[in-house]
Amino acid sequence: MRAHLIVLSCLGAALACETPAEQAANLPANDSFPQFGDIIAGAPPDAWQALDPRNTLYLDLPQGRVVIRLAEQWAPVTVENIRTLVRAQYFDGASIIRSQDNYVVQWGWPRGQAPAFGAARRTIGPEFDIAITPEMPFMALPDPDSYAPQVGFSNGWPVARDPERGRAWLTHCYGMVGVARGDAPNSGSGSELYVVIGHAPRHLDRNIAMVGRVVQGMELLSTMPRGSGNLGFYETAGERTRIRSVKVAADVPEAERVPLELLRTDSDAFEQAVASRRSRREAWFVEPTNRINVCNVPLPVRLAGESR
Amino acid sequence: MRAHLIVLSCLGAALACETPAEQAANLPANDSFPQFGDIIAGAPPDAWQALDPRNTLYLDLPQGRVVIRLAEQWAPVTVENIRTLVRAQYFDGASIIRSQDNYVVQWGWPRGQAPAFGAARRTIGPEFDIAITPEMPFMALPDPDSYAPQVGFSNGWPVARDPERGRAWLTHCYGMVGVARGDAPNSGSGSELYVVIGHAPRHLDRNIAMVGRVVQGMELLSTMPRGSGNLGFYETAGERTRIRSVKVAADVPEAERVPLELLRTDSDAFEQAVASRRSRREAWFVEPTNRINVCNVPLPVRLAGESR
Repeated sequence: MRAHLIVLSCLGAALACETPAEQAANLPANDSFPQFGDIIAGAPPDAWQALDPRNTLYLDLPQGRVVIRLAEQWAPVTVENIRTLVRAQYFDGASIIRSQDNYVVQWGWPRGQAPAFGAARRTIGPEFDIAITPEMPFMALPDPDSYAPQVGFSNGWPVARDPERGRAWLTHCYGMVGVARGDAPNSGSGSELYVVIGHAPRHLDRNIAMVGRVVQGMELLSTMPRGSGNLGFYETAGERTRIRSVKVAADVPEAERVPLELLRTDSDAFEQAVASRRSRREAWFVEPTNRINVCNVPLPVRLAGESR
Repeated sequence: MRAHLIVLSCLGAALACETPAEQAANLPANDSFPQFGDIIAGAPPDAWQALDPRNTLYLDLPQGRVVIRLAEQWAPVTVENIRTLVRAQYFDGASIIRSQDNYVVQWGWPRGQAPAFGAARRTIGPEFDIAITPEMPFMALPDPDSYAPQVGFSNGWPVARDPERGRAWLTHCYGMVGVARGDAPNSGSGSELYVVIGHAPRHLDRNIAMVGRVVQGMELLSTMPRGSGNLGFYETAGERTRIRSVKVAADVPEAERVPLELLRTDSDAFEQAVASRRSRREAWFVEPTNRINVCNVPLPVRLAGESR
């Protein structure tokens, strides 16, 4: 019987990539061009960057740990407010309150049950985009995007830019984390967060503060049973998954941290990895695409020191 | 406390849309432009088309029923082969064998356990795209696409086209169903099918036969626990969800069919609905996008006679 297989390696913003050994089992032995897995495995140590503990959250669920990288550069006031809420234990005992298919999973407190905000702000002026500066690293993708004049990567983030306006913003790719808000643009405090679990809802770009990306444990969120209520909100307490705790990694003893590293998006290895994904040359493909969407580019993550 | 809300209505290829009443609760009363929910609710009866029972599958799982619309026009030999397999009860007792985060859920038989194919074909020449003909209805989207020169909708399907080559193909949007294959382009028989559960893996377009779309029960597939094996395959029998049966709707007594209707993509209502999604004017939005991606356009489904 033929092998179960429709693709050869990890995709999109997925976190788990195959090892070269696993790939090799699915490939003719004489493939001589560099493949995604080999490129990642061969990336030098300085192509990897450790997560900044101050900008890393551990969201602990009964099912396991979700690790979120915070985008302080892109929404500094909101990220600082999230840290304040986390350190006041605002999220400990909160719940997954929403799971809408092909859209978002959201967490916070059910309506009317939220504890006091303490020192945290209840409103924050919009942090939906930032100015393009000459110092901003940017690895541009050459292919058109449905939503923005330019897309690419900056400091490990999927990014869109509008040079005419001089603005840049994070894109709503799978696994990206944003700040739920009401109609008022300043109504997102960071007390309710969501993660994208479907096709990128890019129409939300520049309409809401994006504050991070799930870099481990995404599957714990994406498989939450969908809510039966309007917009996928759960209607009863029994449907909600309770959050054990949310912590800033910097507040956790170093020995208890998850030592994750990200492939630097300004590294040669990343550039080669994108090229290998843009032009698929594995034996399986009959029609290499030679194009790629910003949300289809994998952003590799590994445990420190792991050789892939 | 502010309302839990980050968007106003259904998105992407999601199946469940809000009713206008639900929308109204989240909107200022004085919004005077037509909104998505109102457009769908106001669509005349002839804007809806019933599913063709011969091209409809019922995939019955312990968790409930998944309804799949088959794309006979796009892959006629493969779709006929799937009907042959279904009618030989090939899939009854098969399993969900793979769940890869941000990618696909796949079903069929674990390796080495497949029953005989009977009259069904084991190999089928590639049905990865078709010729553009003058008769082919096509509602084009005006915005750029990362992967294809043209994208839009034809007979209820999300479609890409290359006028220079004179070819058209179905796009790998969320909820679309395809035929797993090995390296040989003719190795996809329809005995293993997959559904897209993440950001559209459009690099698979034109590399594999697309044969349908999930039009009900998508959430039963998208929340399958992710597999721990390579490419999300389950490693043990205990992880797999057993398929009770797969049936062609035409083989089921009429009274037991699910009377679903699709909004015709050549209707005025659909054109208005796309426009309302392309330019979001609801109070929540501060930056209307005025652009849309083919996989972000909802393809509304309702129960026959349902007024929304």
